[in-house]
Amino acid sequence: MKAAYFDGEKMTFDQNYPEPNSAETLVRVNLAGICGTDLEILDGYMKYSGILGHEFVGTVEKSENSELIGKRIVGEINVGCGVCDSCKNGMSRHCPNRTVLGILKRNGAFAEFVSLPEKNLHVLPDSISDEQAVFIEPLAAAFEIKEQVKLDPQWNVAVIGDGRLAQLIAQVLKLSCINTTCFGRHKNKLQSLDKLGIKTKIGIESSDEFTFDLVVEATGSNSGFSDTMKLTRPRGIVILKSTIASRENLDLTPTVVNEITLIGSRCGLFKPAIDALATGMVTVDDMIDSTFPLEKFQEAIIHAKKPDTLKVFLKP
Amino acid sequence: MKAAYFDGEKMTFDQNYPEPNSAETLVRVNLAGICGTDLEILDGYMKYSGILGHEFVGTVEKSENSELIGKRIVGEINVGCGVCDSCKNGMSRHCPNRTVLGILKRNGAFAEFVSLPEKNLHVLPDSISDEQAVFIEPLAAAFEIKEQVKLDPQWNVAVIGDGRLAQLIAQVLKLSCINTTCFGRHKNKLQSLDKLGIKTKIGIESSDEFTFDLVVEATGSNSGFSDTMKLTRPRGIVILKSTIASRENLDLTPTVVNEITLIGSRCGLFKPAIDALATGMVTVDDMIDSTFPLEKFQEAIIHAKKPDTLKVFLKP
Repeated sequence: MKAAYFDGEKMTFDQNYPEPNSAETLVRVNLAGICGTDLEILDGYMKYSGILGHEFVGTVEKSENSELIGKRIVGEINVGCGVCDSCKNGMSRHCPNRTVLGILKRNGAFAEFVSLPEKNLHVLPDSISDEQAVFIEPLAAAFEIKEQVKLDPQWNVAVIGDGRLAQLIAQVLKLSCINTTCFGRHKNKLQSLDKLGIKTKIGIESSDEFTFDLVVEATGSNSGFSDTMKLTRPRGIVILKSTIASRENLDLTPTVVNEITLIGSRCGLFKPAIDALATGMVTVDDMIDSTFPLEKFQEAIIHAKKPDTLKVFLKP
Repeated sequence: MKAAYFDGEKMTFDQNYPEPNSAETLVRVNLAGICGTDLEILDGYMKYSGILGHEFVGTVEKSENSELIGKRIVGEINVGCGVCDSCKNGMSRHCPNRTVLGILKRNGAFAEFVSLPEKNLHVLPDSISDEQAVFIEPLAAAFEIKEQVKLDPQWNVAVIGDGRLAQLIAQVLKLSCINTTCFGRHKNKLQSLDKLGIKTKIGIESSDEFTFDLVVEATGSNSGFSDTMKLTRPRGIVILKSTIASRENLDLTPTVVNEITLIGSRCGLFKPAIDALATGMVTVDDMIDSTFPLEKFQEAIIHAKKPDTLKVFLKP
């Protein structure tokens, strides 16, 4: 099959990569998305080698469940061992022996085919397009915040960052907290949030300092973390929504002095994300950029790395 | 009055420092303790200058409340403005305009006299000695954890560090969680916890990794933070109990990947600490080291800095 393979140093297109050969459901990839995490992996994060790609939509090609064949699906990316305590408690996302699609010991979706256990798959309603469906994985990560924190509608909420994940998070939080503000740096990126009635700001004013009950850090940069600490009220909550291999000179003193609660937040369940897209509660259409054939993955990645680029897709 | 004054660079003993002259209650200092935070301030933390010392016991000398005069007291160290939202909500410890005894814009207790508002004072029962009373401030900081987290008696709990604060925290957590283990580096310091029936360990074994529901980081070092991340189970809780001006190359990735909740924790209320000492639920007698006259503060500080030293007192 066609696949773009990363050997730990560079990506190569292979016309004859072996097809997944497992007892899992075989899925033909319709479309895959390039995510910030993919770009970090290409820079050495997670020390991953294999086929990248964890945001995808596909069509079931082979399955023990005949009803699934031909169905359009998306797939949750964590696969637990099924026998440890985490898996038994329904937390396979935290299984110590898990594999993660395109991130950890499991080939991803920058390929013609991908395989996953049947229980990871969700059949899509027709009302969600392929392009929209690729956003379900990051949108689920945004909804994860609602699993971790009981949102109070009265809260003053800030999202730091204006990338795709930050925009999804701002939309999700706005559903529960009307006073949600997104602090970004790029006017063009913030405009789509403006259109949705979400307050946006470039730069922090002194009147913003220590006034937010909940702040989501979605930049992964030191300056984003420092801005987060400036905005969060004493005893407020911070959600850390980005993994960065190392941050130099990160200062946790404000966390202690102001008794902040920092909550790390990763992948989420797909169901609320699918429902939100299907009902139009969340919209992703303004975040769609362009589609490249899988063969042109190099050009796609160069384009995805530009600061103003929105979601870039690969089509096998 | 006698006072040991820090000008931001060095400490000087002054026989004729002006007495506190305010509408607050005037307290003659019986005994003050040297805390790790004092040693950090001497290294530049908080950019504080003035009289140090925030752990103390004293006798009321002057007060508008005549019943207080001659009473032996301890004093909460944060003084709020009284008019802001934090103060109105009973959170003067987080007042943005607060002063903090011997730490922030308020002269401390390394002096003959100190002043505080009456509402900050707690009269001591006779059953608590002066030496024991000096531990009330750090013990309150240990009890603060119980204000922030609902402890589950079933939890597997770890305390990282074997300093005085770590030892107090281990004792407090053991009251609620029988499975409390203290991970330290100094055999002699851990022995007093062994005597109290608290499990102690030097070094982490692989069977300890990712098994603790709650981990308290009380070393303030990078290696302590890294050990904390090794011990905490996915979705577990970490209490950050030490302020360090900067930590280089601190890696928050495990916080995000394992969805850890990090809670910064600072000062606590004195009442539970006084009760715990008065009833013998917590014991501090094994942590008492030696008492120096205030004039010999230099020797006292040199002694307090040694790794095996327990609590050092200054007597004005």
